[in-house]
Amino acid sequence: MPESYDLLIIGGGVSGFSAAMYAGRLKMKMLVIAAVRGGTIITTNDIANWPGIKQTDGTTLAKNIEEHALEYGSVKALDDKVVEAEKAGEGFRLKTEGGKEFEGRTLLFATGTEWRKLKVEGEEKYSGNGVHYCALCDGYAYKDKVVGVVGGSDSAAKEAVLLTQWAKKVYIIYRREEIHPEPVNMTRVKNKIEEDKIEVISNANVTEIKGGERSMTHAVLDREYNGSKELELDGLFVEIGHIPNSELAKGIGVETDEKGYIIINRASETNVEGAYAAGDVSNTGFKQAITGASEGVHAAYSAYEYLKGKEVRPA
Amino acid sequence: MPESYDLLIIGGGVSGFSAAMYAGRLKMKMLVIAAVRGGTIITTNDIANWPGIKQTDGTTLAKNIEEHALEYGSVKALDDKVVEAEKAGEGFRLKTEGGKEFEGRTLLFATGTEWRKLKVEGEEKYSGNGVHYCALCDGYAYKDKVVGVVGGSDSAAKEAVLLTQWAKKVYIIYRREEIHPEPVNMTRVKNKIEEDKIEVISNANVTEIKGGERSMTHAVLDREYNGSKELELDGLFVEIGHIPNSELAKGIGVETDEKGYIIINRASETNVEGAYAAGDVSNTGFKQAITGASEGVHAAYSAYEYLKGKEVRPA
Repeated sequence: MPESYDLLIIGGGVSGFSAAMYAGRLKMKMLVIAAVRGGTIITTNDIANWPGIKQTDGTTLAKNIEEHALEYGSVKALDDKVVEAEKAGEGFRLKTEGGKEFEGRTLLFATGTEWRKLKVEGEEKYSGNGVHYCALCDGYAYKDKVVGVVGGSDSAAKEAVLLTQWAKKVYIIYRREEIHPEPVNMTRVKNKIEEDKIEVISNANVTEIKGGERSMTHAVLDREYNGSKELELDGLFVEIGHIPNSELAKGIGVETDEKGYIIINRASETNVEGAYAAGDVSNTGFKQAITGASEGVHAAYSAYEYLKGKEVRPA
Repeated sequence: MPESYDLLIIGGGVSGFSAAMYAGRLKMKMLVIAAVRGGTIITTNDIANWPGIKQTDGTTLAKNIEEHALEYGSVKALDDKVVEAEKAGEGFRLKTEGGKEFEGRTLLFATGTEWRKLKVEGEEKYSGNGVHYCALCDGYAYKDKVVGVVGGSDSAAKEAVLLTQWAKKVYIIYRREEIHPEPVNMTRVKNKIEEDKIEVISNANVTEIKGGERSMTHAVLDREYNGSKELELDGLFVEIGHIPNSELAKGIGVETDEKGYIIINRASETNVEGAYAAGDVSNTGFKQAITGASEGVHAAYSAYEYLKGKEVRPA
């Protein structure tokens, strides 16, 4: 018989462990299954928008929330990857890469997102050798080098500013006319442009990544810049968005929007009874760490109320 | 001409200042008008459910968020009470008790709730002299005394446990059969019952509060307990819930539910364009500090997006 829980949480980021902390307070027997402890936020070194904490970094914040949750006796966590999810009776059954099986009376998808790829020639070949998806993780290797950032979002701008700590020059390559970070980050980019550390190449797409045996040397653009379509770069950071990790959820009938984000209501309920979602994988309009944490808290409480309701129903 | 802002926030609690912090990051010119800095949370000394902070108290948490928000140059706060709100053109106009007037292109109600009163004889007379609504605020005065707590909710249970720090005996008086705190707090109450510090009087209502010139001496119940309907008490803490501060909102056409809580969607929008609500005054199912903060963050972003949309519209 697989181990049985009141609540299974897939995902060990801010949303998953915030849910776990509340579920712990509600004395639910529960397990967090995490492929990566901490989730996406650990790729961020500068967090200045978590109410109550003026300045921290992603790893510290995630670690704090995780430790907070694990203080409750009924909360456990496992480092493993869920590879299969199915309905089982009134609950759910999960199988992991590590060959374990678990049953949950309720299930929370706090599965987050993955980096979106460029899908151009050379991207896979030089992945990890010039091509990267996280400046904080890999930027330190580009001290006094020239790098590119693909994307025009707030995340892309933050990555570019971060990279100026190491790189002597950062090109932001964006397919549209104007990058569109949060105003505070736009100001930071502008300051770096004035310092000649950042240059924006707008209306341009990367169509290929070229290089030698070991590492990339050029990004090929679809328009000329300074007289050439080939931009000499030591590294290229791809920041063009995310893909929701919602395949497992879809498999048990959970509805998503057209982009694959799980549709939830204000109580973090999905269309499937006993199944919840929180954080980056959900269809929330404005996705922040704090909003994901709040969705996790709602999910824990909804699961608790759902189970309470079950108990008073006649058999 | 009244001073004009991108965003006016009524209410200086966790939700209001979380919104202000994000609005500051978004470089919106804004003003928080707060009758009480900190809001309801400052009446709580034990906060163990704010993700990222294992243990704090309400005053510290509220202060941190307020200071965080005020670090942004475009955020201001004013200690005053809004007494009038009206629509003015495409925005809103507010008047304060202090005689000031402000105009806002958008408006956030983070107005919270007030304590619900028993509405029995003697309540008003002994208010502040035996009758209280906040154990943390007033409980220290009852060292080695006997007090009552009216209510069966999680808040009531927490207040009762807190009061055992000072009082030699705490009676929980509840109108129904079973009190219903969060499981962790139920365990705490049970421990205190075993220690003879707490006693639960169930199926009982307080119908009158009696006493002398200066302070209360008895609560009158609607049933006998230990042979009498008159329970000798030095103090009585009323914890029977809250009333939403939504009158100003209703006045400008904002819809509320049947209990008066402002109806919002996942983006913290109300039915009135440019008007938002967040925190305890909203119709959220599971109200926590963290969920209110998240609603504040959504409200700030929604207001920002709304104003951005306005700017590109033809005149």
